[in-house]
Amino acid sequence: MTEPKIVLASKSPRRHELLRNMGIEFTLMVPDVEETYADDLPVRMVPAFLSSKKANAVVEYIRQDQLIIAADTVVLLNDRIYGKPANEAEAIEMLQMLSGNMHEVITGVTIKSKEKEITFAELTRVYFRRLSNEMILHYVTKYHPYDKAGAYGIQEWFGYVAIEKVNGCFFNVMGLPTSRLVKELIPFGIDVTAS
Amino acid sequence: MTEPKIVLASKSPRRHELLRNMGIEFTLMVPDVEETYADDLPVRMVPAFLSSKKANAVVEYIRQDQLIIAADTVVLLNDRIYGKPANEAEAIEMLQMLSGNMHEVITGVTIKSKEKEITFAELTRVYFRRLSNEMILHYVTKYHPYDKAGAYGIQEWFGYVAIEKVNGCFFNVMGLPTSRLVKELIPFGIDVTAS
Repeated sequence: MTEPKIVLASKSPRRHELLRNMGIEFTLMVPDVEETYADDLPVRMVPAFLSSKKANAVVEYIRQDQLIIAADTVVLLNDRIYGKPANEAEAIEMLQMLSGNMHEVITGVTIKSKEKEITFAELTRVYFRRLSNEMILHYVTKYHPYDKAGAYGIQEWFGYVAIEKVNGCFFNVMGLPTSRLVKELIPFGIDVTAS
Repeated sequence: MTEPKIVLASKSPRRHELLRNMGIEFTLMVPDVEETYADDLPVRMVPAFLSSKKANAVVEYIRQDQLIIAADTVVLLNDRIYGKPANEAEAIEMLQMLSGNMHEVITGVTIKSKEKEITFAELTRVYFRRLSNEMILHYVTKYHPYDKAGAYGIQEWFGYVAIEKVNGCFFNVMGLPTSRLVKELIPFGIDVTAS
């Protein structure tokens, strides 16, 4: 059996890096979707819904031997979704909300071929230390975290100094639950742990 | 007040990288100590004891305005310490023991100037998926994890595919509890979160 060729439906540079570090070769196909969902969709189901939406937006373009991986990551604090900050003020406000608190990061992942699709979600709890306004301002103005849900990158300077602990998959916070993905790829004929 | 100059008493390349990523400049002074301890020392106290031993081995060489950071990391499974594997067979055996189980990683850290010393330890629980012998062999022969306690690097390919979740500080598993260290450095006049 020939291994299917992976198509990553994501423009996130973190996801590109994660997949490469997992030893998975892939091509990119960026989905053109509006990240909208029904008002009555439970917030914890949003990332799974959006990952499926992204996968379905590119499925007509893939070949029979290709396999799509799509994902969506959200930050949740007190059951409210924090998306990407629109500007500096919003980024500062988000980080002030997260300071000293636990928040949840959920990544939804869809694996889809022409024949079948599975979608799953993984939740990681992240505990921030109390952050000074000075530190938040320093991070936002220096690192411009506008392309990141919740306004921070766990793999940046900020992650090293602000995060007290995580409970769950660390890489999930970066955008992909890597070891869970390894497991879910096996029924699709891909085993990255085989040499 | 002039900021004291950091001296890192560790030859671990992971610790060098972590400290750099925290935005801390440092010079290196590798301690020449035997990593031995009394038989009746409780295993959970070993890393703190050894980090202090390392710091004290270099203290006579530092200047009044310098500050030592020393650390020691151990892997514990069922209260037994797993150190660095001596060879391929030992590395494979260690990873087979860790497979499918939770283990603890404790890093002891000592911060020491000419005047004062503090030592603390941080514990992270790491949960491995069940690993095939094939995968373990692939990792050991390709990555040669002989310089790593427990025979794995969480920041390598292995970390992405084998670790189901962590509970605690992720960077602690790499060798330094970074956000805790930030906090403990403040009484020594170092605040890496100030811009």
